[in-house]
Amino acid sequence: MAEISPLAPKSFPALAPIAGVRLASYAAGIRYQGRDDVMVAELAPGSTIAGVFTQSTMPGQPVIWCRQCLPHGKVRAVVVNSGNANVFTGRAGWQVVESTSATAARLFGCDPREIYLSSTGVIGEPPPVDRISAALPSIIPLLDAAAWEKAARAIMTTDTFPKGATATAKIDGAEVRINGFCKGSGMIAPNMATMLGYVFTDAALPAAVLQSLLGEATEVSFNCMTVDGDTSTSDTVLLCATGQARHAAITDPGDPALAGFRQALRAVMIDLAKQIARDGEGAQKFVTIDVSGADSDRAARAIGLAVGNSPLVKTALAAADANWGRIVMAVGKCSEKADPDKLGISVGGFPITADGGPIPNYNEGPVAEHMKGLEIHIAIDIGLGSGKATVWTCDLTHGYIDINGSYRS
Amino acid sequence: MAEISPLAPKSFPALAPIAGVRLASYAAGIRYQGRDDVMVAELAPGSTIAGVFTQSTMPGQPVIWCRQCLPHGKVRAVVVNSGNANVFTGRAGWQVVESTSATAARLFGCDPREIYLSSTGVIGEPPPVDRISAALPSIIPLLDAAAWEKAARAIMTTDTFPKGATATAKIDGAEVRINGFCKGSGMIAPNMATMLGYVFTDAALPAAVLQSLLGEATEVSFNCMTVDGDTSTSDTVLLCATGQARHAAITDPGDPALAGFRQALRAVMIDLAKQIARDGEGAQKFVTIDVSGADSDRAARAIGLAVGNSPLVKTALAAADANWGRIVMAVGKCSEKADPDKLGISVGGFPITADGGPIPNYNEGPVAEHMKGLEIHIAIDIGLGSGKATVWTCDLTHGYIDINGSYRS
Repeated sequence: MAEISPLAPKSFPALAPIAGVRLASYAAGIRYQGRDDVMVAELAPGSTIAGVFTQSTMPGQPVIWCRQCLPHGKVRAVVVNSGNANVFTGRAGWQVVESTSATAARLFGCDPREIYLSSTGVIGEPPPVDRISAALPSIIPLLDAAAWEKAARAIMTTDTFPKGATATAKIDGAEVRINGFCKGSGMIAPNMATMLGYVFTDAALPAAVLQSLLGEATEVSFNCMTVDGDTSTSDTVLLCATGQARHAAITDPGDPALAGFRQALRAVMIDLAKQIARDGEGAQKFVTIDVSGADSDRAARAIGLAVGNSPLVKTALAAADANWGRIVMAVGKCSEKADPDKLGISVGGFPITADGGPIPNYNEGPVAEHMKGLEIHIAIDIGLGSGKATVWTCDLTHGYIDINGSYRS
Repeated sequence: MAEISPLAPKSFPALAPIAGVRLASYAAGIRYQGRDDVMVAELAPGSTIAGVFTQSTMPGQPVIWCRQCLPHGKVRAVVVNSGNANVFTGRAGWQVVESTSATAARLFGCDPREIYLSSTGVIGEPPPVDRISAALPSIIPLLDAAAWEKAARAIMTTDTFPKGATATAKIDGAEVRINGFCKGSGMIAPNMATMLGYVFTDAALPAAVLQSLLGEATEVSFNCMTVDGDTSTSDTVLLCATGQARHAAITDPGDPALAGFRQALRAVMIDLAKQIARDGEGAQKFVTIDVSGADSDRAARAIGLAVGNSPLVKTALAAADANWGRIVMAVGKCSEKADPDKLGISVGGFPITADGGPIPNYNEGPVAEHMKGLEIHIAIDIGLGSGKATVWTCDLTHGYIDINGSYRS
């Protein structure tokens, strides 16, 4: 077990129960010994669901399955395993999807399309065909409204800490709660990170409204976070709503009654995304990159990700080397509009560049001091328009090489 | 001084003189102590030139200068310094360009637009304004038709060995020679690598013909090589022709008399590109990725580069871990057309995948054995079309982190 990231939150947050959600985890022996590796989340009958998935052309079998289920819009359970990604596993991979969804549907008394599946771990290794479905009867009696942290732990792979977040909001005067947890620490890049994320609410929202809210929030959270620029075959974020809260019916994602909920959902998802960057494989520093003045928000995000993915920027960050020229390089390699004479770079709030060069009498001292800390802030003003974005990442260290040169074995 | 890459050629090749080309190098004290850091190549009056440059939106001052000169089509000298990139250096950077080109033009008795400049090293550090121009009078008496290796050494930064290549060809019955040298080992990605490359020939070719030949050859050489996916602000490849060989006039790049020359130019540039991958910062393995069956040659190259740039593939290569699932991931993250059921991956000539999964009875033994070697071969058949490309790269090791966490200091 790797040491816990120095950037980890002090503890897993207290997640209050959400009416209509119960969770359980179990050690099914998929790959790891002595830890839970299957997570089941049960949703009350009638719960609605939205999902966003990897853009990979090589998606895993569970992703293909979830996409097929999504038009149905209902969810009764989410079943996730760690240790085997069930990607590029041919017929055996489909057998796992079929046996798991069929068994869970029988046990929960629902349509198989209401069973959502995710798998995370090694790609291309034959998955143990019946191990998950065989474990389900033992897992269901364990379902518990309070088991959030255990659920978050069961889906971890190279993660060093479980990741959870919570918020409340009012819809039409009624309080609703949003709880989420996720995993991810390598093979992390938009769209999306190699990550699995599960967000639950007791709000009563139709699937189409949920999908719209989830898409919006993903753009400014998980799609603004990168560890290594590698996009997983298994990325999945699901948003499930049990509808147990009492509020007026909502049918339009633009309904003003959703303002607070929209805000709270973004906050939960941004919190989770930042935790993934904080647990980037080998991460020793958490890095926030604020880009402003770009041609568009999209351009700002592309520039932020070019900086956040640059191995040369990330190794300089690891070494606390105030080598800001590499930030210039990374802005330049991105094909988005930029002009050296208008580019303003600050690190830790200290301005560095103006008029196509370092500012007069630039003093590296305070920048270097800031870079010694655990949290680094980079601001990049493109100086051309009003597009902006915030991107979160981590440094690139020897730890990343160690973890990824030995993950499989 | 870093240890020489284990992937380096045994020695610098023997480069015969080229009529009309003389070279010199000199220790001007730009940044390094005890080594040459300025290189001058003199071309006979009337020599023609072609160039390709970085696509960065933050190009260095020397790149901007060369682009301005290129329409003129003539070259009398190329002046290159290492140790300072002269990028994002504001007014001081322009002063260096002006003083160097003006001084060299005076000394060689030519138009300043016939003086080509490159700089490589740290970005954003004020360059020593007059140091290069002050050194020029001492350098010119050293010009020598045999000084290829010294010239190749003077332009090195984190390179661990000098890189040269040579070939001969016939144009219209007359033998012509092509010599080239280059530098580059990090901040290496198309288009182009962070690299400087200088190729010389005694052929008599107008600038427009040279430009066409250089563009074609760059596509299959320097633009098919990657170390870390970071694109430099200073990438430059120049092709200079002295016209001292005796052959019929050529005015059309499609002239069949150029077939052998075109072939030889590609061979020299591919040889140089492969040497850069062999000297990738921290490289312990040289990796060739052959992609076939893609939708187009362009798509094949994009897929090869996605695999060659993936930190997860590169760390697995460093560890000799036959984790082929990461190759599937990297093919998938690229937005080019691909179908899991048609994807065929081989490593070291051993087939691994078929029909969307590992082949029946796949035996990892021989693949793992191949991966322990210094040279790794990956073949990826997309199975959809006839597009193909070859990409060269290296593994990602602790050495890369060490070099790039300490380069500046």
